[in-house]
Amino acid sequence: MSGRIRGNAVVGQSGGPTVVINQSLVGVIEAVAGCDAIERLLGCRHGVRGIVEEKFIDLKGLDRGLLDRLANTPAAALGSTRDKPDADYCRKIFEVFARNNVRYFFYIGGNDSADTARIINELAAAESYELRTFHIPKTIDNDLRVTDHCPGYGSAAKFVASAILGDDRDSAALPGIKIDVIMGRHAGWLTAAGMLGRQDECDGPHLVYVPEARVSQEKFVHDVAEMYGKYGRCLVAASEGIEDENGQAWGAKVMPTGEKDSHGNIQLSGSGALGDYLAEAAKTGVSKLLGGKKLRVRADTFGYLQRSFAGYASAVDQAEARLAGRKAVEFAMAGNADGSVAFKRLGDGKAYGIECFRAELKDVARETKDLPKEYINAAGNGITEAFRAYAMPLTGGLPVIGKLA
Amino acid sequence: MSGRIRGNAVVGQSGGPTVVINQSLVGVIEAVAGCDAIERLLGCRHGVRGIVEEKFIDLKGLDRGLLDRLANTPAAALGSTRDKPDADYCRKIFEVFARNNVRYFFYIGGNDSADTARIINELAAAESYELRTFHIPKTIDNDLRVTDHCPGYGSAAKFVASAILGDDRDSAALPGIKIDVIMGRHAGWLTAAGMLGRQDECDGPHLVYVPEARVSQEKFVHDVAEMYGKYGRCLVAASEGIEDENGQAWGAKVMPTGEKDSHGNIQLSGSGALGDYLAEAAKTGVSKLLGGKKLRVRADTFGYLQRSFAGYASAVDQAEARLAGRKAVEFAMAGNADGSVAFKRLGDGKAYGIECFRAELKDVARETKDLPKEYINAAGNGITEAFRAYAMPLTGGLPVIGKLA
Repeated sequence: MSGRIRGNAVVGQSGGPTVVINQSLVGVIEAVAGCDAIERLLGCRHGVRGIVEEKFIDLKGLDRGLLDRLANTPAAALGSTRDKPDADYCRKIFEVFARNNVRYFFYIGGNDSADTARIINELAAAESYELRTFHIPKTIDNDLRVTDHCPGYGSAAKFVASAILGDDRDSAALPGIKIDVIMGRHAGWLTAAGMLGRQDECDGPHLVYVPEARVSQEKFVHDVAEMYGKYGRCLVAASEGIEDENGQAWGAKVMPTGEKDSHGNIQLSGSGALGDYLAEAAKTGVSKLLGGKKLRVRADTFGYLQRSFAGYASAVDQAEARLAGRKAVEFAMAGNADGSVAFKRLGDGKAYGIECFRAELKDVARETKDLPKEYINAAGNGITEAFRAYAMPLTGGLPVIGKLA
Repeated sequence: MSGRIRGNAVVGQSGGPTVVINQSLVGVIEAVAGCDAIERLLGCRHGVRGIVEEKFIDLKGLDRGLLDRLANTPAAALGSTRDKPDADYCRKIFEVFARNNVRYFFYIGGNDSADTARIINELAAAESYELRTFHIPKTIDNDLRVTDHCPGYGSAAKFVASAILGDDRDSAALPGIKIDVIMGRHAGWLTAAGMLGRQDECDGPHLVYVPEARVSQEKFVHDVAEMYGKYGRCLVAASEGIEDENGQAWGAKVMPTGEKDSHGNIQLSGSGALGDYLAEAAKTGVSKLLGGKKLRVRADTFGYLQRSFAGYASAVDQAEARLAGRKAVEFAMAGNADGSVAFKRLGDGKAYGIECFRAELKDVARETKDLPKEYINAAGNGITEAFRAYAMPLTGGLPVIGKLA
């Protein structure tokens, strides 16, 4: 059976790391340990770059203790890359594979990594070179198509929800206007998670802005003033990728460097500029609406902590990321197929559970998935309870807090 | 015995919240439950402001479940304040106490709160009004005098250490220059905690800057370039209160608002401006030193998450904060004394433990405690192992990670 061709395997990690991306790596290592068809398991350093530079490390025979520690370590243990391979680059990868008798390729990453896997897979097919390619999803953005959700998202959502849960208590203790800027260039999945800790109507976040719902500066200021009038304070969760009424990213207007990544996107993360801009806009605008009232306004940009904070992963996310790695190997062994591991949610909506299935690489590559309309309120400044039902199980549960009457 | 005078008690919380400040509140509530001398236990809303406005809530008879949830809730459940009472304000407080037969005052806060407690105590003494006043220490800054360490610090230190532990893995996966700005206006205790997750010589933070060791922009850029040359990346932990070679706060030069607090200090927290400034300084300066090399530079400002993140407190800190609350009540009951609860570290430096003792209010009020010289390296850009021995037990332990060779 062609799925069982004998040879070596390569596993790599790509894109922005998560706190469970090494769970998937360990899942691959564990599953490969039981595969006679795979002789060597080579980890490529820094994703595709490590393949073309032939920087490999042998991953068979690592001891159990190290695997356990690795699985609990944030960020890509093999190293990651932002390289987005073009056709020439992919050809080089394929040549390295052919030269090293690599017959299995497992690539842990987002939609760009799925696309890279797809291109290499097509090159192999065109040359009648037997290569089983599996993409293993990971992204805190939760924006991959086909799958119900993405490994990495549940932990980031737990982090954001816990941060806002605590920040809301802080804001209640010392009231004012607080702006929290959360990762998410095109999709609001992670920002939406800021609402998961809300219990009472007066709890923050009082406003949530996501890229899927445009917001003008005028509306933003008006919204904040309204909530401040109602609650004596206002906690705002805003995606780094929010867009103004014309569809222009607010961040693009305020980022100091204008630095662009390999995809031509302006750098939004790793700077507090958008938070500071929103804070200043609120301070000036809301004060004016409230007759010159002096306001305490603060901004936090959650930054890289959302994707790399150690010791606070979601147990559900950890288990699922491990499973995704194992399943990629099982699927590659089971038949003459390539693809991406995807999750299907099981059950009646009460008990949470998933099963894995094989998605086509082309269906996961490139385009991404926005937050659906039913998760955004009619005013475009809040998140619905339907989203909570979707996202809460992925966090593995949030801290339970108490309040004085 | 005068320590047992019968009457009511007031408890309040003040200053920047921590994730364990409610543990101390619950400690007071629990200990008061066993005191016949205390008739009513009144919680004042928003610290001293709630006293002068007579906004009290009754804290006797709260159910066990609520107390447990409260104890695990970040930030001051009674509300906090930044008010720094002058003599008139303190007189008003005293008058409210006298009118309501308040004979016990427990104030959870930092050095300013200790000073407020001291002044009120002196007013009472001058009027021969029997009042037992106890300050219960709390601050993530860890800068109170007399005590070995402060409730609130261990949890904030655990947060910062875990954030940097993960961020360092992120930086190793996608190398570049990363700046992390950490709270601490005058003292570097919390920034120093960034080094607690370091295991190997190549681990970050590669540079740590604290207010106690001045650093010029030239030295900063030179240091970063040197580490980048050595490790191919550089992770920097910098206090928000770092000072230049002339003793001027870097933050004062770069903060957008210039807003000052009630103590006349310029606002440093709640903005990403210092991080962005340091990132730009590194980007321009280091690139120049390295012959125009294009550098990936990012900055994160940990912000309010350090003091309010839910669900990740240090178990040691939680237990000690609870104990501090209980001990304040015990000390007040035990004799005719006022003071501040302080910790003494026990043992031979191997097994960690503390015992509580009574410090004088005047010895804790006002002045603060800097990071001692022996915790800062000779170059003024790093933290010594002696600090690790001091601080690690307070975190209750950090995540254990693994790395590939």
